[in-house]
Amino acid sequence: MTLPPLKYNADGLIPAIVQDAHSRRVLMMAWMNDASLSATLRTGQMNYWSRSRQKFWLKGETSGHTQRVVRWAADCDGDTLLFEVEQVGGACHTGYESCFYQTFSPNGTPREIAEAKLFDPEKTYSSK
Amino acid sequence: MTLPPLKYNADGLIPAIVQDAHSRRVLMMAWMNDASLSATLRTGQMNYWSRSRQKFWLKGETSGHTQRVVRWAADCDGDTLLFEVEQVGGACHTGYESCFYQTFSPNGTPREIAEAKLFDPEKTYSSK
Repeated sequence: MTLPPLKYNADGLIPAIVQDAHSRRVLMMAWMNDASLSATLRTGQMNYWSRSRQKFWLKGETSGHTQRVVRWAADCDGDTLLFEVEQVGGACHTGYESCFYQTFSPNGTPREIAEAKLFDPEKTYSSK
Repeated sequence: MTLPPLKYNADGLIPAIVQDAHSRRVLMMAWMNDASLSATLRTGQMNYWSRSRQKFWLKGETSGHTQRVVRWAADCDGDTLLFEVEQVGGACHTGYESCFYQTFSPNGTPREIAEAKLFDPEKTYSSK
């Protein structure tokens, strides 16, 4: 496997946008280092680098909500990645399908959340 | 206008994912500071902060390829924004509709680019 030439930031990270391959809904954005990108390509399952926990992170390792890679691309500058995935369960740790559940009016006012959670995060994460 | 509580990085910037509101194709990712977000919400046209040029940037100011905001959201952590837009022309300065025109095989090999450019960047940018 040969990784394409990519531009990582000063922390060795590159942002990965994750989109549902079927609905095309944007699910989340997270960060990868070259080891998590290599693991993602090798296994076909999304792996990240957690900046808050400073650790390698297989998406779904606790929740079971894994993401299988269907297609991927880099942008024109080689500094952002886009992955289309098959998402098991919800992508967001809050229980929503997407991390982008909070929309706003044009003047910046939060709108009422228009969707239900797909899972209960207390049950999903409590005993793990 | 009241901006929601958002988490900007150490440079005062927040990433904005931009998606075509109709096709749901992800077009680009760029960075905003609070001034460019305020201008975006005030005018309904996407404005960014260019890290390479260190300047405020109205998308389409040279090319005419503007982006009108249809909907927007923040993610669960408040550190990434998602904008669905109506894109005039192509979003990418290379001439392609999306900056994510370069896809890769699962083993990291670049695939042949499967689409045509929407405009000729030399003509679009040369006389400006």
